[in-house]
Amino acid sequence: MMKRIGEARICKGCWQQMHVPIPLRGPLSLPFRVVGIRPSQMNPNLCTICELMFERVMKRRAIEIDATILFADIRSYTTLAQAMEPAELSRLLNFFYDECAAAIWQQDGLLNKVIGDAVLAIFNFPIRHADHARKALTAARDIQERCTERCKRELVGYGLDASELGVGIGIDSGLTTFGEFGHAHTDFTAIGSVVNLAARLQSLAAPGQILMSARAWQTSAGEGDDAERRQIVVKGFDTPQVVYAC
Amino acid sequence: MMKRIGEARICKGCWQQMHVPIPLRGPLSLPFRVVGIRPSQMNPNLCTICELMFERVMKRRAIEIDATILFADIRSYTTLAQAMEPAELSRLLNFFYDECAAAIWQQDGLLNKVIGDAVLAIFNFPIRHADHARKALTAARDIQERCTERCKRELVGYGLDASELGVGIGIDSGLTTFGEFGHAHTDFTAIGSVVNLAARLQSLAAPGQILMSARAWQTSAGEGDDAERRQIVVKGFDTPQVVYAC
Repeated sequence: MMKRIGEARICKGCWQQMHVPIPLRGPLSLPFRVVGIRPSQMNPNLCTICELMFERVMKRRAIEIDATILFADIRSYTTLAQAMEPAELSRLLNFFYDECAAAIWQQDGLLNKVIGDAVLAIFNFPIRHADHARKALTAARDIQERCTERCKRELVGYGLDASELGVGIGIDSGLTTFGEFGHAHTDFTAIGSVVNLAARLQSLAAPGQILMSARAWQTSAGEGDDAERRQIVVKGFDTPQVVYAC
Repeated sequence: MMKRIGEARICKGCWQQMHVPIPLRGPLSLPFRVVGIRPSQMNPNLCTICELMFERVMKRRAIEIDATILFADIRSYTTLAQAMEPAELSRLLNFFYDECAAAIWQQDGLLNKVIGDAVLAIFNFPIRHADHARKALTAARDIQERCTERCKRELVGYGLDASELGVGIGIDSGLTTFGEFGHAHTDFTAIGSVVNLAARLQSLAAPGQILMSARAWQTSAGEGDDAERRQIVVKGFDTPQVVYAC
């Protein structure tokens, strides 16, 4: 098992938003577990009530929030998947998901879902932080630190050059629709242009690189932060997008 | 609520594989529900035991199975997401997820996950069918039938031409690793080259089109089936791929 980083005893979301102390761990949590309230799979410092908060508490299926969306994926994954044994491929994904989870949770983000070699994280819901774009950037740098060297070291030998190995990350911030979609199969996620742009930027990022939209960069960069400004054409967007590569 | 198509009273997976009748609905299902055994979100004719069968029954985290993978997504979604109001976008995704679910479940497939405007389905696990590629093709045609006309009719007026609207589908068949990945955040899915090729084919399919790998087409096509044979270059694959467009 991986090391658990500073696990909360009560749900951070319920405490921050309603001042209700929902026990997540220890004997006090047992009666809650019986009725299905337990630590969320998306962030162990939140409970399953928080996941569905907007539905149960707000009586709506979807809400609009200002949030930051982060996508990260393993470069050259399609090529690697053809060359690797199934057990090796499982090990690679286990390692990647676990490192991403640790980096995202440390910044109070939600690991919303994984899709093959890609991870989708949301910052500013349900744990609110005015500097959510900054938190996403910190998580992104942490993911790069945890994964880049190891990818380059362990994934050579599959016909790929070290320059093709590593993780690519895309980040955008703005108004996002967050909720449950579908009736037969329900899916709890974020949708909208912010999600789409973050996904596109991730696919355009070089190994080891973080590509941020202008909005995300301007609200997250602090003193001493450095990035290269570029204008790029992004599929599905009419106008060229200003992005920052770091 | 959408119409439920032929819902099973007992879990089809447990019955087929172990001859154990697990009640899914009605009063007999109540004691099972208390311990967390209920209809699966991925297919209402399966129970939650089936979802984790390979883990609980087979004592392994992942297994290799011969399966068919289907990806479907809404063409021009990035453009639409910028032009649509959040409520309209939610409605579009609700409609698309529900129609895909109905088409996939009718063929005993698993709606494994949705990712923005994309749907990932698996055929031949845990309900086995020797003709799983055929079942996937039937589901794909059903999705096109349910969605194409409605997409073209309802999505014009967002600066898009009818020829850019509709659903694109990609299908591949072969040995696939199926299991739970990650330790901190666990994800139940299929991984490997078959999944990657199906995803790439989906992204290359034209609106209204189904693109199948040669393997999937050869095992699924029946008499009277017609498709156009092509050779295409697919990102991440060294050699050009023979595909069938229908």
